[in-house]
Amino acid sequence: MRIVRETRAMQQAAESARHSSKTLGLVPTMGFFHEGHLSLMRRARAECDLVIVTLFVNPTQFAPNEDLSGYPRDFETDCRLAEAEGVDLMYAPANAEVYAPDHATFVDVERLATTLCGASRPGHFRGVATVVAKLFNICKPHKAYFGMKDYQQLRIIEAMVKDLNFDLDIVRCPIVREPDGVAMSSRNSYLSADERRAAVVLRRSLIHAEESFRAGERDAEKLKSKVRAEIGIEPLAQPDYIELVDADDLQPRIIIERDSVLAVAVRFGKARLIDNLYLQLLTTGDRVA
Amino acid sequence: MRIVRETRAMQQAAESARHSSKTLGLVPTMGFFHEGHLSLMRRARAECDLVIVTLFVNPTQFAPNEDLSGYPRDFETDCRLAEAEGVDLMYAPANAEVYAPDHATFVDVERLATTLCGASRPGHFRGVATVVAKLFNICKPHKAYFGMKDYQQLRIIEAMVKDLNFDLDIVRCPIVREPDGVAMSSRNSYLSADERRAAVVLRRSLIHAEESFRAGERDAEKLKSKVRAEIGIEPLAQPDYIELVDADDLQPRIIIERDSVLAVAVRFGKARLIDNLYLQLLTTGDRVA
Repeated sequence: MRIVRETRAMQQAAESARHSSKTLGLVPTMGFFHEGHLSLMRRARAECDLVIVTLFVNPTQFAPNEDLSGYPRDFETDCRLAEAEGVDLMYAPANAEVYAPDHATFVDVERLATTLCGASRPGHFRGVATVVAKLFNICKPHKAYFGMKDYQQLRIIEAMVKDLNFDLDIVRCPIVREPDGVAMSSRNSYLSADERRAAVVLRRSLIHAEESFRAGERDAEKLKSKVRAEIGIEPLAQPDYIELVDADDLQPRIIIERDSVLAVAVRFGKARLIDNLYLQLLTTGDRVA
Repeated sequence: MRIVRETRAMQQAAESARHSSKTLGLVPTMGFFHEGHLSLMRRARAECDLVIVTLFVNPTQFAPNEDLSGYPRDFETDCRLAEAEGVDLMYAPANAEVYAPDHATFVDVERLATTLCGASRPGHFRGVATVVAKLFNICKPHKAYFGMKDYQQLRIIEAMVKDLNFDLDIVRCPIVREPDGVAMSSRNSYLSADERRAAVVLRRSLIHAEESFRAGERDAEKLKSKVRAEIGIEPLAQPDYIELVDADDLQPRIIIERDSVLAVAVRFGKARLIDNLYLQLLTTGDRVA
């Protein structure tokens, strides 16, 4: 696996690979790999000739009060894990290589970025969209792989790709979970043992909501109430939001008439965890959950 | 010359040409061609294997009170003129082909977009940067050609290219003028005969400022005053701004210590005309005026 630190070298490697008719698959990450990341690399490896992983903890998506400086990092382990998945190229630039001192350009995706995590993390998705636009131009992928855990991020990137005519496909990948159901996240490393045990309430409450949905419940408030009540029983859980939104436009829904997402963000100590449940209506069978 | 109406077809033509190792030159326009446009096409023709002209009157860069609906158009003449310049491909999409009903993504270039025309046309450069980002992704050029008459637009696009890592070169092209010195502009067609005669005051005042600058004047206020006084004599001229800004960051300067631009925007009847003078310091000989 080749490690590339410089943007120009990465861009040239990508251009040269495209020129040789190779298909390029991109997995953008902030590192500290878990099975979720590795599943994206595996999917890219199966579908593309050249697999590029980017490892960059993007400062513009963190607010001043957030966990940028403490974000978990382990470059050597990450390299070993990526190499074991058959990744060809790891682009791991320094901050100054990505953002010049006079950087002034930002990509805004309106509407989609204001609900859910966008409400409590203003500017977050502006930073995400900007860095992903940059990574697309630097790595020139044919396909880019994103996990459905960060569903709002996924939708914002899909919208950006469509709106700005990036000539690439976004591949939605399923949430990968620990055996007890907790969604894999680099931020799980912030959890104490007690908090880690408590965190199972997220998935458990979503499973119960899914059972109601499958039994025919279409009233968003009833589904949310179930989740809210179940999370409320857990003393270590401090909910940020519990929302039911349209799967496309991410706006809140009262009655489920199209594919929707039940999304939760909950704090456990200093960790803010998110999880979600994709509610697929059988009548819209052309969508993939 | 091939005329392409569909975004997907344009993108495929560009990708296929890149794949055949052709260099692609892009000239983005809003049509109603004059010698300024044609000079860009000629330059692209001399430097690139495949020359693409885009013709799209971009609605997102017009404010509701501006001249979108009345903007001059003449598609057949434009096609004839572009073909005569050896243009290979004209991308001329309908609005709906460029902006989907749910379009929500915009590119903001901060700082550079707030001075000069940005002050009197809020949102204008957001629309420009957004559509140019789209055109870059649709047409995939190696080089894109922009005139220096719209100097602020040029700087904003240069900044966007650098900040978002578009893998292409922006080529600065000189202002093309009528025999009497008036900068060519599609909006000159709005001028009455009297206004057209009066419009020469812009270039004349800039030439006089240039003479002072070459004689050693470095005081921005003195240079601006000269221009303001000379334009003030013309009763049909209603100045919007007369500014002296740094050629890179477009911020106002008091003393000229780096390359600068003396930029003017003046209304003549319903036409708002802009012009500028690039003030090159000999000590910074690495810049091209």
